Amino acid sequence: MTGKTNVIQVVGYRNSGKTTLICHLVSRLTQMGHRIGTVKHDAHRFEIDHEGKDTWKHRMAGAQAVAITSAEQTAIIRQRYTPLDNLLREIGDLDLIFVEGFKFAARYPKIVLIRTEDHLPLLKQALNVIAVVSWIPISEADVPVFHKDDMSGIVTQILKYVKEED
Amino acid sequence: MTGKTNVIQVVGYRNSGKTTLICHLVSRLTQMGHRIGTVKHDAHRFEIDHEGKDTWKHRMAGAQAVAITSAEQTAIIRQRYTPLDNLLREIGDLDLIFVEGFKFAARYPKIVLIRTEDHLPLLKQALNVIAVVSWIPISEADVPVFHKDDMSGIVTQILKYVKEED
Repeated sequence: MTGKTNVIQVVGYRNSGKTTLICHLVSRLTQMGHRIGTVKHDAHRFEIDHEGKDTWKHRMAGAQAVAITSAEQTAIIRQRYTPLDNLLREIGDLDLIFVEGFKFAARYPKIVLIRTEDHLPLLKQALNVIAVVSWIPISEADVPVFHKDDMSGIVTQILKYVKEED
Repeated sequence: MTGKTNVIQVVGYRNSGKTTLICHLVSRLTQMGHRIGTVKHDAHRFEIDHEGKDTWKHRMAGAQAVAITSAEQTAIIRQRYTPLDNLLREIGDLDLIFVEGFKFAARYPKIVLIRTEDHLPLLKQALNVIAVVSWIPISEADVPVFHKDDMSGIVTQILKYVKEED
């Protein structure tokens, strides 16, 4: 992976295992030397930062944006919505970014997680599906299907897709 | 305050009251309708995010950058140093950003905090000082000096400076 930052969405219904899958993928790909980022969509008002820290105090005082930076790490918390494309541009300069969520709200290539038969309609509804990761056997898919524990298979498919796109 | 984002540094030695001053200023200026941001320099490896959260898990798995976004808030944590100017550009589009620290490492107008006589040399060393906020009486300064509790005086001086710069 070189050049542009690739983006792949991991979509699925609640409790289909999106976070677990992303963590396994990040871990495997990082060990292979790739630089990976993640974006998570949160439907609620997420809590980040620790009560009592200076950045937390600045935010409680009313700051619209707080940032903290050290030699090794940088964090920015903004009190506003940021469109996904802007966020991806801002993260920039990585090999691959996994986006958790934005099922019907983003146009990037998708890995669809299927946990039960109730989830199957998602395969037809989601656009730009490049792989299915499933807890149950699936026969009717038009794209490669992997069992949720077949991490090698999933990683191989991702690298194949990313290479083809390069 | 309109147009470009103004930047003011708040510098001083450890325990001179930088965070407290910034919180008071953010609170006052926010109540006056201004959109304020803050940047903090951290000399160590700061901790942000909560153990067990998805973003934390992504980071522990090795992600070089993690982001989370909701309708009201966005956070990005990157595992690398970001130069102050880039960070300020990224925060963008606010009325005023207070930068805590970067005493000798940045060129923005500065409010210098003086707690004891030992801190006085900082007045000569710091470049581009627009005000001094002090715990002790100071006579020899070339710029306005305010007692640390004279928040109205300090805010007026900041707004005057910002207006002159606009």
